[in-house]
Amino acid sequence: MSATTVEERARGVRAAARVLAACPGRVREAALEEVARALEAADHQIEEANQIDCARAREASLADPLQRRLSFGPEKRRQALDGVRSVAALPDPVGKILERRELDQGLLLTRRTTPIGVIAMIFESRPDALLQIASLALKSGNGVILKGGSEALESNRVLARIVHDAAVSAGIPSGWLALIETRQDVGELLRLDAWIDLIIPRGSNDFVRFIMDNTRIPVLGHADGICHVYLDRDADPAVAEAVTVDAKTQYEAVCNAAETLLVHQDALSRVFPGVARALQDRGVELRGCPRTRAVLPGIGVASDEDWGAEYLDRILAVRVVDSLGEAVDHINTWGSGHTDAIVTTDGDRARRFIDGVDSASVMWNASTRFADGFRYGLGAEVGVSTTRIHARGPVGVEGLLSSKWILAGAGHIVADYATGLRSFIHRDLSLHEGSCCGDGEGDA
Amino acid sequence: MSATTVEERARGVRAAARVLAACPGRVREAALEEVARALEAADHQIEEANQIDCARAREASLADPLQRRLSFGPEKRRQALDGVRSVAALPDPVGKILERRELDQGLLLTRRTTPIGVIAMIFESRPDALLQIASLALKSGNGVILKGGSEALESNRVLARIVHDAAVSAGIPSGWLALIETRQDVGELLRLDAWIDLIIPRGSNDFVRFIMDNTRIPVLGHADGICHVYLDRDADPAVAEAVTVDAKTQYEAVCNAAETLLVHQDALSRVFPGVARALQDRGVELRGCPRTRAVLPGIGVASDEDWGAEYLDRILAVRVVDSLGEAVDHINTWGSGHTDAIVTTDGDRARRFIDGVDSASVMWNASTRFADGFRYGLGAEVGVSTTRIHARGPVGVEGLLSSKWILAGAGHIVADYATGLRSFIHRDLSLHEGSCCGDGEGDA
Repeated sequence: MSATTVEERARGVRAAARVLAACPGRVREAALEEVARALEAADHQIEEANQIDCARAREASLADPLQRRLSFGPEKRRQALDGVRSVAALPDPVGKILERRELDQGLLLTRRTTPIGVIAMIFESRPDALLQIASLALKSGNGVILKGGSEALESNRVLARIVHDAAVSAGIPSGWLALIETRQDVGELLRLDAWIDLIIPRGSNDFVRFIMDNTRIPVLGHADGICHVYLDRDADPAVAEAVTVDAKTQYEAVCNAAETLLVHQDALSRVFPGVARALQDRGVELRGCPRTRAVLPGIGVASDEDWGAEYLDRILAVRVVDSLGEAVDHINTWGSGHTDAIVTTDGDRARRFIDGVDSASVMWNASTRFADGFRYGLGAEVGVSTTRIHARGPVGVEGLLSSKWILAGAGHIVADYATGLRSFIHRDLSLHEGSCCGDGEGDA
Repeated sequence: MSATTVEERARGVRAAARVLAACPGRVREAALEEVARALEAADHQIEEANQIDCARAREASLADPLQRRLSFGPEKRRQALDGVRSVAALPDPVGKILERRELDQGLLLTRRTTPIGVIAMIFESRPDALLQIASLALKSGNGVILKGGSEALESNRVLARIVHDAAVSAGIPSGWLALIETRQDVGELLRLDAWIDLIIPRGSNDFVRFIMDNTRIPVLGHADGICHVYLDRDADPAVAEAVTVDAKTQYEAVCNAAETLLVHQDALSRVFPGVARALQDRGVELRGCPRTRAVLPGIGVASDEDWGAEYLDRILAVRVVDSLGEAVDHINTWGSGHTDAIVTTDGDRARRFIDGVDSASVMWNASTRFADGFRYGLGAEVGVSTTRIHARGPVGVEGLLSSKWILAGAGHIVADYATGLRSFIHRDLSLHEGSCCGDGEGDA
């Protein structure tokens, strides 16, 4: 990694990515296996580098959670290695045929998946994030630019070099992965929309918000996770309690944990008291609207600030609503479009909620905490997107893919169709596997 | 359309779009039929408004092509009406099930298509563009903000009012469509990333480039169309001539017309002379590299400027290359990632070209001019995208769609999976039609 500008390096990744995009799936799979072997062989070296980072973090008295995230001990290293191998074993996502259409006799249109091109991943301390995203990028044929936290400098350097070199030794073009290291480099990176197709930031909300606000490059991710549980008028009390407790307390420091509980007025005396008790038993602080506090006078007051808060803590705002429509409006006004749940035994009302709530994931009688790429069975998680463009909700490796149209003919020209000499058939064909570059006459 | 700020109106469209998103397909279809009826009934009024615009354009001595595009005569009005009716008749694109997975017994995950939300369409003079995009937006359940050319002010006002009101009379929420009129309003619009999800600009390259360079909202479209035809060493001479002539001359003023011809050195004496003659017979000015001019001394000189030029005219730059790889490199360096063609009888070489060229559409023995939503059989064309995010190449109504995850359970909680009490099945289900809100136990 020589002392070139970020732009020069991004151009280099773009050039390598073009060659990588045409590498067969077996080469990419073999490269990932080689990466896993190289990581295993260099385990001691990785450990040493990480220990330097951890020692510096201790000296600098970094916050404990940060030090914990930074630490890349034997168990985490083993898991990361398993992760690389499981990505290697995923079916090849590139070249999958999405559409096939016979436009006319001998004129065959195919749309197939391609890599996006160059992905920039900006993450905070955890060194395992580097391995995860580098593996997914390689699997999907994308070049990648990585920026880790400065506190993980030594770990990231060693990991990036091993991953890059092992893949190159297996036939991947040199330069497919670049590591950048300084905050100044990030500023330059955010301006490189000519060379970078997608940015995936991982870190705190403020960090993601900063990235989103300072680049024209598309960003896959989400800043806020203000998730709701709505207890409908005929919610089953046991389901209401189980879902609310899980959504709030199973792991409260994450984006898909619930921050606000909405209660239909008819469920207030029948369902809410049991739920409230269960939450309070687990140390959850409740903050309520006036009608909530009328039935539970001991709790704090919730203001507008609470409806827009992502506590990431054992605090839950509670609001009573007159109707399902009011619950939907509250969520669409105050939520972040991430994940929201309804608890109800009435299927029609569930459907109204699902149709009306404008969020990436909508749960019915299930916890918001399920909104996650692994739990959704996507094989791997690239991120959770709250934009409506490109990918929405938990995103697997397909979030790193684009597509390409391929039209194979035998000298077909548009003039013949414009003059009426020929006309289009537009017959959809099955998506069977095989050559996407024309069968039969197109192959002449 | 009262005198509110653009932001207030965008918020209004967002609010209406949330209700529209949950409107059943039959309501949206009926609304489009009502729009067609209303347009037909107001035909005289539309004609009058358009004549005012045309008279003003004549007085202002606007350029002839602009006056022609502005004119909305009986034949264009009839075609536009047919267009609205054919969009009404398209299958409902909303609520289509994309994935179904049983995560565990009674825990059913579904991903289905949803509208994106709010689309802003900025177009130049043609009033028919307003009807086309408004119809597609309504069909796909999106709110829409329209900005037409100021020269079409009267036509656009009448059309927007008719379309909006007719749809509302058929049950679509009021405010689903807004028209903005001034250049200043566009400046404000480009900053409204909180309320607008996607911008679709239609117009000149400079116009689209301006939009792309001045907003953080995702833009669906393309600025440049620098398309190539590459004559490989074993190109069939007749196919080479037909494809090149069509790609350059069938309609030279459009984005998918060829601007550069690349010729393999082994095809230079065998294939190129016939192609060159055919082009020159049709009044095409050739500009060549030194090796091209060695065989065709009479033609002009092509410089680096020509490789990056979108002539949109009967001019073609010609360059001789040593290899297929050099052709691919030239295209990836100088092209705009729009559409590029290879002429060859060798399937393996075609595949190398298709894999290597980093463009939205790649043609094999077929003209670049086929790259178009109607010719591709997409039913309607929203635009042609040269980004790799969200949609690529010719984009049909699916470019106006996002998706939503729906998880239906029976009180399922993540804690049970975290503790190992339960484990995921992750069984993919068929995408059969029907309820997407849970079958069986989820429906309890």
